[in-house]
Order: sequence, then structure tokens, then C-alpha cells
Amino acid sequence: MSGQVLPSWNEGDARRAVLDFFDRVTSEGPDFVPVADRVAAFDNDGTLWVEQPLPPQFDFVFRRWAQEIKADPSMASQQPYKAIIEKDPAFFAGVATQDPPVIKSLLKAFARSWAGTSPAEFEAQVNEWLVTVEQPQLGVLYKDLVYQPMLELFDLLKANEFRVFVCSGGGRDFMRVFAEATWGIYKENVIGTAAEYTYVDGGMVPGEQVLGSLDLGPGKPEHIFAQTGRLPVFAGGNADVDIEMLESAKFALLVDHDDADREFAYTASAEASVAKAAELGWTVVSMKDDWNTIYGTLVDA
Amino acid sequence: MSGQVLPSWNEGDARRAVLDFFDRVTSEGPDFVPVADRVAAFDNDGTLWVEQPLPPQFDFVFRRWAQEIKADPSMASQQPYKAIIEKDPAFFAGVATQDPPVIKSLLKAFARSWAGTSPAEFEAQVNEWLVTVEQPQLGVLYKDLVYQPMLELFDLLKANEFRVFVCSGGGRDFMRVFAEATWGIYKENVIGTAAEYTYVDGGMVPGEQVLGSLDLGPGKPEHIFAQTGRLPVFAGGNADVDIEMLESAKFALLVDHDDADREFAYTASAEASVAKAAELGWTVVSMKDDWNTIYGTLVDA
Repeated sequence: MSGQVLPSWNEGDARRAVLDFFDRVTSEGPDFVPVADRVAAFDNDGTLWVEQPLPPQFDFVFRRWAQEIKADPSMASQQPYKAIIEKDPAFFAGVATQDPPVIKSLLKAFARSWAGTSPAEFEAQVNEWLVTVEQPQLGVLYKDLVYQPMLELFDLLKANEFRVFVCSGGGRDFMRVFAEATWGIYKENVIGTAAEYTYVDGGMVPGEQVLGSLDLGPGKPEHIFAQTGRLPVFAGGNADVDIEMLESAKFALLVDHDDADREFAYTASAEASVAKAAELGWTVVSMKDDWNTIYGTLVDA
Repeated sequence: MSGQVLPSWNEGDARRAVLDFFDRVTSEGPDFVPVADRVAAFDNDGTLWVEQPLPPQFDFVFRRWAQEIKADPSMASQQPYKAIIEKDPAFFAGVATQDPPVIKSLLKAFARSWAGTSPAEFEAQVNEWLVTVEQPQLGVLYKDLVYQPMLELFDLLKANEFRVFVCSGGGRDFMRVFAEATWGIYKENVIGTAAEYTYVDGGMVPGEQVLGSLDLGPGKPEHIFAQTGRLPVFAGGNADVDIEMLESAKFALLVDHDDADREFAYTASAEASVAKAAELGWTVVSMKDDWNTIYGTLVDA
């Protein structure tokens, strides 16, 4: 392959492993993968964009709740709002690890706040947030904190006739708002935790129940299979909640957040996945060493 | 457009309406549809292939149950097996109209029979059935009873940058087995009623619960929205259970089974959709008058 692909990736084991993968699956031989099976799946938060101090969707949601609490101060004594206001460490640890009970309490509160919101209204709210709210430490819009090397990997996957899916514990409908502009994939290629909607009077109305499992841990391959009828050939993640998805793929790529200068350095919620990577021979990407550029052209963090 | 498109469609109102639709949505003007929104959705049974005397999946399922009853005759006194053996008219009317309680009893029995069957085993069973079992009146494999004019319509949709989805009350996983060879669409473009699967030891295991709603009536737009994040621009169906899907689209095409010589003539379970077509100006396709060929090149029924 020419030096034109993956320009933001430094020469090294990770880049070599990725290029070798494409050579193997597209050439006749034991590792050849038929085009129909070429499904790739990626976590979003921490894999495709910054997830510190919290996954960006929490910023979108917490702002709404702050407005609601201002209008109705009695909410401040109820959960999950109380834990958020008090910055309860146990609660935020649960958010960071995407602990199912914490996520369920958030989903319930989310369903309450957005009950009766049409998809078009929700899309307008997310779009407004995308162009106005900056990540607090970096002072940059979240949408400009997407990792350029991963977008280049998407390009390479597409060039090799892979269909790229994003599969996140976060909200399917939240991600679908910016999937097309940001990742160049259609909404149907976005998999995530989502409400069941009901068709009423020609429109879609969100309900309180989650459709299927939470898209975390084993829920990730479950959602990918439900959406695509396959398990992925290529998968990318960065955290313990991605282990089953990475395990279910032929090639697994784990992003290691070790770049305190340009992004953040942390291993919390990724300890088990790092151990799995060593055990199963996954390709670990050091953001510090393997990527010469972190963000799109807009950011100089 | 050249006369090369839709060759199995006779000149007439239906063909003209379809071609006019493509002209309008792909040209600048009030009806232009951005490429990202170009989602098309089609029912399967009776829209893409023969559904008489019963949707073909019932043949696949009932054969399995016949074997099970032979091995355990006590099943013959239990529902739904008893109704099937006795050809209970109320039960079969419920099958034809895809009555939810009847479909639910079938799904429960289906889940029992295929509990623990891996996707690969299920695929092998369906593939075996596809190449061995013939439709009883026509003496032809079901897979050769796909309507050639609809395959040409798929080609035209794809040529106009539509993504084509099949959305059937029938089994998602059943259809996914032959979607790629028959319709030229990937498994992820097949939407249907489906079990929730669990990820166990690196593989997918079907459970007893249905994921989301039955893919019938309002369940069709619900499933399409869940899968794609959109409602369809173009939809095709043939029965009352397709009304909501057709209603949710900008262009709706209703297949009228009026060809007793080449296929079957019947209006049962389509009365309300025919009335809706007149009320809302849907394009009705007369199989007898609008199609000069019904099946692919293999069939001379």
C-alpha cells in the first residue's frame, strides 16, 4: 500500500498491523474475507473522540437537567440529579465505567426529559449543542475533537469494501445526528443504546423502554448482530465495556490514552481491556507514539 | 430515462408513476430528496415473492414441526400444532392477516424449536430448504418465485442512490439467509420480526423474547426507524399490515394480486390497503396488466 494511507499514523507496530490486516483479508489465502462479511465496528467515546472529563453526551444531557432544576428546584433532591449536582464520586465512577444501574437511572431520567420530543426536534437540539458547547479543558467544540487517525482508518476500511458501523453505549439517536457529517456513514450504520419508539399519527414518539439490551459489554456484539446479522471482522475500542465486541472480531484495535500533552492520559475503566489485549494479541494504539496528529485540522490543543 | 429500465413493466400508469418519482426526487426542485434520505422499504411476502397458499417461511417452520410431532405425538394435542394439523380455518385466517396473537403463538413455538440453534446452523437449515422444497401448486422452488419486476425496481432504486431495505412481518434471520443472493442487499438491510439474541462464549444464542415490536402494521415504521433513523421515501407492500409503512413514505406502491393465470388472484387481507391506496393516491400495480414477466427467467408457471 502507498504511503498516502493513514497519514496521521506513525510508522510502527500498530500501523503495520493494520496495513497487514488489509493485505491479508483482501488477498486470496487463508485470511481472505468475502466482501459481504466485511463489517467493522467501533466504539465512539474515547475511541473516535475525546471522552474526558465525561462522554460528551453527558454534557448535552446535564445542561438540559440544569435548566430543569432551575425551573423546579425540588428536582435537586432527587436522583440522579442530586448525585450530579453533588458530584457524587460513586455515581461518576459508575458513569465512567458505564455501570448498568447508573446507566439505567440516567436513561430513565433521559426518557422523562425527552418524552414527546420528535426526532426532528431532538436533532435540532443536538445540532445547536454541537456548534455552541466547547469541551471545558480544551476550549474546543466536541465535534472538532474527533480523532483524525480514526477517520483515516474509516477511509481505508471503506476503500477495502468494509461497511463501517459505530457501536456505542451512548445514545443511538444522539450519534445519528452527526454521523453523516462527522464519520461519513449513514444513520443506519450507527448502533447504540436507544429507546423504543412508537409510530403515532405518521411520526415517531420515544417511549420509556430501552430497545433490547444496553449497548455495553456483551450488549455490543448483541446489538451488532441484531443490526447486521454478523459479528464484526474489524473492531476498535478503548475500554472494558468494549471487550466482548473486540473479542468477537478477527482483528481488534485498542486505543491507549497515554498522551497527556495533546489529549489525556488515563487507564481507568480500561485495565481489563489492556490485559485482554496482551492475552489475545490485540493491536494497541498508543496515542502518544502511534499518532502524529490527534484531531482534525482545526485543533491545536 | 431509457427504455432499458424496468423491462418487465408494461407501459402504463404504474410504470410512469415510478419513473416520474425518480425524475422528481433526483432533480432540483420541490420534490428533490437528498441522497442521505433515500431510504426505500419493501414488504417481502406477496410483495417480493409468492405468499400463497401461505408465506413461504411457514412451509419451512411447519416441516420442522411435523418432524417434531412424529417424534413426540403428544404435541399434536397442543397449540399451535393442533390448529396446524387440523387446518383450523380461524387459525389460518389469523396467519394470513398476520393477527398478532396468532403470530405470537407461532413465535413462541418457533423459539422453542430453534432454542440453542446457532446462526450458522439456522442458515444451513434455511439453505437446505431453499434448494429442495417447492411451492406446492407451482412446483417451483420458492426462491425462484421472486418477482422479476421488483428486482428491476431494486436496480433502479440503487442506480438512483437509494438504500433498499426489506421490512417484513416474517423472520429477520430467515430472510437474511437469502437476502444477498436474491435481492442483492446486505443482511443489515433486512428488517423483520426477530428474537433477542444473547452473546455467550463468543457466539450468538437466540432467546425467547422478541426484540421490540412485531414487524407488522405500526411495527413496520417503528422497525424501519430503529434500523435506519429515518422513515422511508419509497415503500412497497401488498397487504393491510403494510398500511402504516406505505403511509409513512412519500411514494407508496401497492401490489395487486389479480393474476390468476400466472400467479394468484386474491384480495383477502388487502381490502383496507386497497381503500387507502384510492384515498391517498398510492400507485397500484396490477400484476396482470402492469407486469409482462412475473418471475425470474427460471419459471414458466
